[in-house]
Amino acid sequence: VEVTGQFIQQLQRFIKAKNEEKILELIADMHPTDLAIVFEQISPKEALELFTFIDQEKAADVITELDEEAREKFLAQLSSKEIAARFVENLDSDDAADILSEFSKEKQREILSEIEDPDVASDIVDLLQYDENTAGGLMAKELIKVQVNWSREKIIEELRLQAAEIENVYAVYVVDEHDKLLGILPLKKLLVEPESVPIEDIYLDKIVYAEVNSPIAEVAQQMKKYDLVALPVVDALGRLVGRITIDDAVDVIQDEADRDYQLLSGLSEDVEADDSIWILSRARIPWLLVGLLGGIVGANIISQYEEQIMIHPEMAYFIPLIAAMGGNAGVQSSAIVVQGLANRSFRNGAFITKLGKELTVGLMNGLVCAVCIFAYNYFFGGNIQLAFTVGIAMLTVIMSASVLGTFIPLSLNKIKIDPALATGPFITTMNDITGMFIYFLIGRLMYSLII
Amino acid sequence: VEVTGQFIQQLQRFIKAKNEEKILELIADMHPTDLAIVFEQISPKEALELFTFIDQEKAADVITELDEEAREKFLAQLSSKEIAARFVENLDSDDAADILSEFSKEKQREILSEIEDPDVASDIVDLLQYDENTAGGLMAKELIKVQVNWSREKIIEELRLQAAEIENVYAVYVVDEHDKLLGILPLKKLLVEPESVPIEDIYLDKIVYAEVNSPIAEVAQQMKKYDLVALPVVDALGRLVGRITIDDAVDVIQDEADRDYQLLSGLSEDVEADDSIWILSRARIPWLLVGLLGGIVGANIISQYEEQIMIHPEMAYFIPLIAAMGGNAGVQSSAIVVQGLANRSFRNGAFITKLGKELTVGLMNGLVCAVCIFAYNYFFGGNIQLAFTVGIAMLTVIMSASVLGTFIPLSLNKIKIDPALATGPFITTMNDITGMFIYFLIGRLMYSLII
Repeated sequence: VEVTGQFIQQLQRFIKAKNEEKILELIADMHPTDLAIVFEQISPKEALELFTFIDQEKAADVITELDEEAREKFLAQLSSKEIAARFVENLDSDDAADILSEFSKEKQREILSEIEDPDVASDIVDLLQYDENTAGGLMAKELIKVQVNWSREKIIEELRLQAAEIENVYAVYVVDEHDKLLGILPLKKLLVEPESVPIEDIYLDKIVYAEVNSPIAEVAQQMKKYDLVALPVVDALGRLVGRITIDDAVDVIQDEADRDYQLLSGLSEDVEADDSIWILSRARIPWLLVGLLGGIVGANIISQYEEQIMIHPEMAYFIPLIAAMGGNAGVQSSAIVVQGLANRSFRNGAFITKLGKELTVGLMNGLVCAVCIFAYNYFFGGNIQLAFTVGIAMLTVIMSASVLGTFIPLSLNKIKIDPALATGPFITTMNDITGMFIYFLIGRLMYSLII
Repeated sequence: VEVTGQFIQQLQRFIKAKNEEKILELIADMHPTDLAIVFEQISPKEALELFTFIDQEKAADVITELDEEAREKFLAQLSSKEIAARFVENLDSDDAADILSEFSKEKQREILSEIEDPDVASDIVDLLQYDENTAGGLMAKELIKVQVNWSREKIIEELRLQAAEIENVYAVYVVDEHDKLLGILPLKKLLVEPESVPIEDIYLDKIVYAEVNSPIAEVAQQMKKYDLVALPVVDALGRLVGRITIDDAVDVIQDEADRDYQLLSGLSEDVEADDSIWILSRARIPWLLVGLLGGIVGANIISQYEEQIMIHPEMAYFIPLIAAMGGNAGVQSSAIVVQGLANRSFRNGAFITKLGKELTVGLMNGLVCAVCIFAYNYFFGGNIQLAFTVGIAMLTVIMSASVLGTFIPLSLNKIKIDPALATGPFITTMNDITGMFIYFLIGRLMYSLII
């Protein structure tokens, strides 16, 4: 089903008319993700009416898929008891914890006290203690585990019991009597291996796992690297405490990519095209103001050369070119560094080697551009002084921009600041300023040297 | 195991000394993905020696994980017969087809003719016919399928048989006697539901699937949207022909994100920080040359105002500022459009509505920046003419850059060209040119109006 504007209008008419039959006809077969899209486009009140037509499990999934703003508005209409009974108890522990974490501490306690199953409540309380950027904050408590010394029969029986509680079964985890993670038993092995073979002979003990405090970006990269659909999470004692599923890891990967893209494009918030004008403006103004500040500094540098411009106005013609080339070269370098750090391909070699390499790349690109612009000015343009000034400045600016574009994000990364901050407008602004400084310095030199 | 430079050197020494015991000690427990990283850092000849220590299944997986260049060099050392027996026959059909597709048609035929199992060869030939950017090109033929009218016993038996051939079992597909896809039978249901219940009562018939010709970017987005670990693929008649697993979809998602990032940063090739200086330079020069061309056009525009600059050199001071602000605002707008199109959040509303919204955002941000720079020039800077010129130009440039930054990628998307092409240096260069045009036009007006 494609959720079109027409679909929404039709649905809203049926809700207003309380036409149960037609509403059910429209939404009965819809996936929770698509229903969430519908919910974000109708009023919280209409959403509340619509909810009575969706079964509890599905309704809980819809709530998970909603964006934070729509969820907040919707849940504000319900009592703590309703939230606990209708949503929290029907969700996987990680989704339940995520939703609860959006409430105040007090409201959290209130909702938790309304949960009937003490195991469910205790799982959620467990999860709430972890930082949302760590494996503990991403994992769910739902998993299937068996003890290594159990018989095959007992295992099959336990599997049935435990699987009934879990939405997606990917693997069976094998633990010892103290819950220490020993390995994984692929479902396939249970199917294929004859019943006489004991568990300890068929489970895999060389496995990838995460610790509760590992950063989620790292965990997601691991799952991607090793093609895993689920990753067990252990505590400091090596005890199995949860598992992370690939759908959550995919969201992390997308979020990381979106964040880098956003910083490169000069947005200070995670915005989407259909956000309000106010949010869109707010996300864009900070970096524009940084650019403004940089421009003022640039203006002050150029103003030092007022007389030179009056005599040689042709110097001014190439200001945008020099600024643009510095900006472009700097952004290219910084982007390569940031992507290299993100996908860990930028491991080998010392700091100084990387700068040296970048200097060489800058030299090569700078030479090509410098020769082109020199030729242009020499043959079509004004004077020989200008040709030399622009050519030499071009080479110098591209080289310095390349080195700065590598140096700054690498340095930020060393002191544990997100290197992606040094991409986009930041690096462009910096290189505009250094570019102007270099250009006019070389200009003064050239015009005094070559007569 | 972390693959360090030290580790590689140690391994190379052992390979040279043919110290089998030590080699095995080092690599025995390594994951194929990590082994591939090792392989990319040693010579093809050393890699060939190392291969004798790795079992066939694992060796095949290592080959899949290698980057294309390293794989080509490595496989060039082997005969078609060896490639078929040692790698192609030990791989999943999709990986085998991917590797084969890198060879010439002739070599492909040669390798295919050396494959002993005719089913394997026929699966690969099937897959090779699909475009690599479609679901058919991404899917594997390995899957578990059962007919809806089979008994539970027969199903369990078939499952055992089929699962033995497959690395990862996520779901059992249910088909009719003509192989038409009817639904999915989650493994969990088989575990949990009593044996007396017939299959037709427990399989899920509302499922998400892809057609062989669907673009992979769309397929990957679907899997992400609906949190799927595997997606069945059907042909034009609705017959089940393959399945796509989440690990391949994750790679597609990452590739799409990388490509958008790369275009935004002005790189014309997919490069990594550890690529050679030559490749890094080659990827960067095209957009630098575009910038160069733009700069020359800008220089020609400014040169029309030579006299004005000689009289009012202060006009030149703010050239970098106007250029930078146009560039930044344009990149912000285009980035929001490109991300919105990529994650499909940019669906609602007509073309003209989107432009109108962008114009409003540009107006708001432009006003803030214009007021700031006007105040700066009025209180600290030179004359009232300059203050008005820069302020008004700032507002106009930010608004026009915002609109262009929205209009161009949206238009490209309409005519089916990748909108991400209109981000980064392209939009910056365009806005530099229009910015200069606007700035000096307004300047001439202001200096003649205000005396």
